[in-house]
Amino acid sequence: MSDARSDRRSLRILIVNTLADNEADDIALERDGRARALRIGLLEAGYNIVAVFPADMHLPDRIAQLQPDMVIIDAESDARDVLEHVVMATHEAPRPIVLFTEDQDRSSMEAAMAAGVSAYIVAGLSSERVKPVLDVALARFNADQKLRNELSDTKLKLAERKTIERAKGLLMERHGIAEDEAYGRLRSLAMDKNLKLSELAQRILDAADLLG
Amino acid sequence: MSDARSDRRSLRILIVNTLADNEADDIALERDGRARALRIGLLEAGYNIVAVFPADMHLPDRIAQLQPDMVIIDAESDARDVLEHVVMATHEAPRPIVLFTEDQDRSSMEAAMAAGVSAYIVAGLSSERVKPVLDVALARFNADQKLRNELSDTKLKLAERKTIERAKGLLMERHGIAEDEAYGRLRSLAMDKNLKLSELAQRILDAADLLG
Repeated sequence: MSDARSDRRSLRILIVNTLADNEADDIALERDGRARALRIGLLEAGYNIVAVFPADMHLPDRIAQLQPDMVIIDAESDARDVLEHVVMATHEAPRPIVLFTEDQDRSSMEAAMAAGVSAYIVAGLSSERVKPVLDVALARFNADQKLRNELSDTKLKLAERKTIERAKGLLMERHGIAEDEAYGRLRSLAMDKNLKLSELAQRILDAADLLG
Repeated sequence: MSDARSDRRSLRILIVNTLADNEADDIALERDGRARALRIGLLEAGYNIVAVFPADMHLPDRIAQLQPDMVIIDAESDARDVLEHVVMATHEAPRPIVLFTEDQDRSSMEAAMAAGVSAYIVAGLSSERVKPVLDVALARFNADQKLRNELSDTKLKLAERKTIERAKGLLMERHGIAEDEAYGRLRSLAMDKNLKLSELAQRILDAADLLG
């Protein structure tokens, strides 16, 4: 996995398209140059297409079963609806979503960015450009996840801090003790109970609510 | 400006390339199909190319003077060095940075994402695809800025919270008062002095440090 080449080869890709069922897939491929160029590019670059599914109610289960490394949406113009399905289906375990579409509408692009799409590729991509586009999408996804994780960590810290400070204030008030001492008591109790400081603080606040 | 079309037409673009000076530009354009396709695409889509500059020590001043809406880096393989210059030059006032390059190295892609590049386009882009690519880059930039702003807001709130809680704890300890009362005093003093609560809290902490 340390070799970029072997790493890329092992990438398991799920393609979501806008066909009603899988049976019609081969016919659609015939008439749709874009879909063909995309798949040729994926196969030539050595990616592993694990499945091609329509965006229906079964999609969440299928994604959960297959655990693809990346989801490619290949949508003519109804990319927005398909994207909504895929975003919901990958909400618990985010993965790179790459959108190939004919939809050049700016509001569609904005909606896709807000939904966390890693690449939005409009029209006419030649098969030999598929590989670098997916490499960029992967790098984008990783950078984006890092930023989103930092944001959720910081939000959690802020929430925990509020909880701890409220519990500390409660102790100071009830026992007429100084801040340092209140903090010390919280800490040692958390250690005794083998809890995170914020967890202990939340229990103290819950108990105070109950006991009045 | 509410019309997407006129909005796009007015977009002022600065191109940064890797030539030693502007004089050599026309010659380079002759031999470089990629640079030519890019500029044709920009002009056909009605963008306004305000200047073409090399990535040198004057770049920050030039960007500050021209205030372009977007910076396009057109770099053969030394994209990383050029990008570093542009990121530094736009640090104070972030704007979308779009990178056209031949560099397919994954670590270059990762470095570019970390630096906040809005689009990384490898090789062979036809001129008619320039417009949707830049539209996606703009949407990407806006979504990214929103996320980054949310992160810096949350970080600031966390820091302010820490300051306020420390000042509150100090008042509770010094005056032997309850949390609510300490908070009330902080609030009314902040209103009297026309300061943000966190600013007043910081002043109290500074004063306590000085006075011991």
